[in-house]
Amino acid sequence: MKKLINSVETVLHEQLLGLVEAHSMLKLHQDPTFVTRRGAPVIGKVAVMSGGGSGHEPMHCGYIGEGMLAGACPGEIFTSPTPDQMFECGQAIDGGQGVLMLIKNYTGDILNFETSAELLHAGGTAVATLVIDDDVAVKDSLYTTGRRGVANTVLLEKLLGAAAARGDSLDACQALGEHINNQGHSIGIALGACTVPAAGKPSFTLAENEMEFGVGIHGEPGIERRPFSSLDETVDSMFATLIDHGNYQRTLRHWDRQAEDWRETRQSKKALAKGDRVVALVNNLGSTPLSELYGVWHRLAQCCNDFGLHVERRLIGSYCTSLDMQGISITLLKVDDGILELWDAPVNTPALRWGC
Amino acid sequence: MKKLINSVETVLHEQLLGLVEAHSMLKLHQDPTFVTRRGAPVIGKVAVMSGGGSGHEPMHCGYIGEGMLAGACPGEIFTSPTPDQMFECGQAIDGGQGVLMLIKNYTGDILNFETSAELLHAGGTAVATLVIDDDVAVKDSLYTTGRRGVANTVLLEKLLGAAAARGDSLDACQALGEHINNQGHSIGIALGACTVPAAGKPSFTLAENEMEFGVGIHGEPGIERRPFSSLDETVDSMFATLIDHGNYQRTLRHWDRQAEDWRETRQSKKALAKGDRVVALVNNLGSTPLSELYGVWHRLAQCCNDFGLHVERRLIGSYCTSLDMQGISITLLKVDDGILELWDAPVNTPALRWGC
Repeated sequence: MKKLINSVETVLHEQLLGLVEAHSMLKLHQDPTFVTRRGAPVIGKVAVMSGGGSGHEPMHCGYIGEGMLAGACPGEIFTSPTPDQMFECGQAIDGGQGVLMLIKNYTGDILNFETSAELLHAGGTAVATLVIDDDVAVKDSLYTTGRRGVANTVLLEKLLGAAAARGDSLDACQALGEHINNQGHSIGIALGACTVPAAGKPSFTLAENEMEFGVGIHGEPGIERRPFSSLDETVDSMFATLIDHGNYQRTLRHWDRQAEDWRETRQSKKALAKGDRVVALVNNLGSTPLSELYGVWHRLAQCCNDFGLHVERRLIGSYCTSLDMQGISITLLKVDDGILELWDAPVNTPALRWGC
Repeated sequence: MKKLINSVETVLHEQLLGLVEAHSMLKLHQDPTFVTRRGAPVIGKVAVMSGGGSGHEPMHCGYIGEGMLAGACPGEIFTSPTPDQMFECGQAIDGGQGVLMLIKNYTGDILNFETSAELLHAGGTAVATLVIDDDVAVKDSLYTTGRRGVANTVLLEKLLGAAAARGDSLDACQALGEHINNQGHSIGIALGACTVPAAGKPSFTLAENEMEFGVGIHGEPGIERRPFSSLDETVDSMFATLIDHGNYQRTLRHWDRQAEDWRETRQSKKALAKGDRVVALVNNLGSTPLSELYGVWHRLAQCCNDFGLHVERRLIGSYCTSLDMQGISITLLKVDDGILELWDAPVNTPALRWGC
């Protein structure tokens, strides 16, 4: 394993120092570790926060800033942050209107966010939670009950950050988040594995002609290993899977602010249909050249057009990565005028910036 | 070789189609192939153009737009574009104030740009040329007489695009370009090679503990192969090389507009010195995770501080790549208030955007 690091023990800390040294809009807090907007809290606005294992950069810390996240908690690589990180972060960013926690659906994250939400609530901070589960590839897996949370997280962070910035209430932000989560669908493929520094070797091995279809953002297995044929066949299969598997029931565990307790509700994810308007994200999982992403986009645009989806906005690049994994994911999020207004709102973060 | 492409024959065309389908500000011209700003030419302004072999995305086509390039000519992967591409592009973007050609210093590019400049001149278009040679690693090599042109190209495209946008004349843009080129220094390292689709295998092989120190953006050999030890030692060595090898004489071949011929002049590149103000670029050559770039930045900022360089602006990301090469380059460009004013001017391109 050759990586531009000094040691497994120091890698995360040194990278976070570099991040905040490069971007003066960010502030690194230590013991416990979390990152906030400089100038947080913003009084009178809901604070949107996220977090999770590191290794998905620029997610999440690269999305802290005006019009997006107020703070984020990076765990060790592919490891959930601890409840004290989220608790301290939540306290630091609460501007009096409460904290919305965006949680990717992994067992460890859910547990630790739940604990921190209870701690924040006990300390007098209003908390709402949103569990993100956009990966259509697998239902229940090694790391997850239900669907995994992947790249739609980036779109939710943008949209809910914009809602918070315009002054939406905590309840309104949470309800909007549930709506958007139910409209978002993702799938990934890998042609090669990533290498976690602490492991020192690739997390899986593929034969020269194989790809992992439906891979997770930690290298988790997907739907199947299948032969890699061509760009077009791969994108066609991903698109078909996104359309076919978009409909499902989900059981949602969230903090009920009135009952002051955790509740489970059942919700429906709705598949995409002809005539829908979408935001599309072609996401680099790590070491895929940008030029290949544009090849993917060329085919995906054809697929959307042939099916009858109207692509209103698109993002093509490295947004939710898996270290140096060779592969991509595609996210399609159904939108309407209201969501597009939030999409177009100014955002000024290290990794996403427009209109500012 | 697994790549997200359909075939070696169609890869470039499909990727260019995807690029312009994704970014409505761009227009793809065919037979011959080049890309321009939609709405080009901009009447009354110098048109800055560039070009070169593909495989360095987002360079160059990703830098076409407001405040940067008017057009660019992508060759096949790692292969110079042909004179007819540059000729047609120059004609399409000339807004009456002439065309400034930014040429990375490779023998093939120089030859083909020279021919196209003569053709444009014969057709009545005012042309000026700028040869970029910022790579301190090697002097003369397999592909080049003199120093190679690498990531400082991105900074020159930004700065000269801004100068053209504010109305600087062709002569002024060229003179400024020479000045900036003489102040810019780059060096790259590779931990792993890239794979050119047409070759089908990695362009070189490194042992498990080796790195190529001073690698070029086509995988050309650099100063030496040496053991990879750590991030800090690597960045320290790169910084020391940038400082030590910054001073050299160059023979510059450029189009002399008064003599209507090609002339050679001798110029001096000036090394960086204590107290200098710089723009720093930490550039991903391909498959290096963003998190590692921030680790690099953390160490580089220390090096600059210890030496006495004042970092005025910084870019950290994938700007001048080499397909999926594992590695990075560092560029340090000496700046003053005038250059910083151009740096901060609005830019709106697919890959670089601020202030718009």
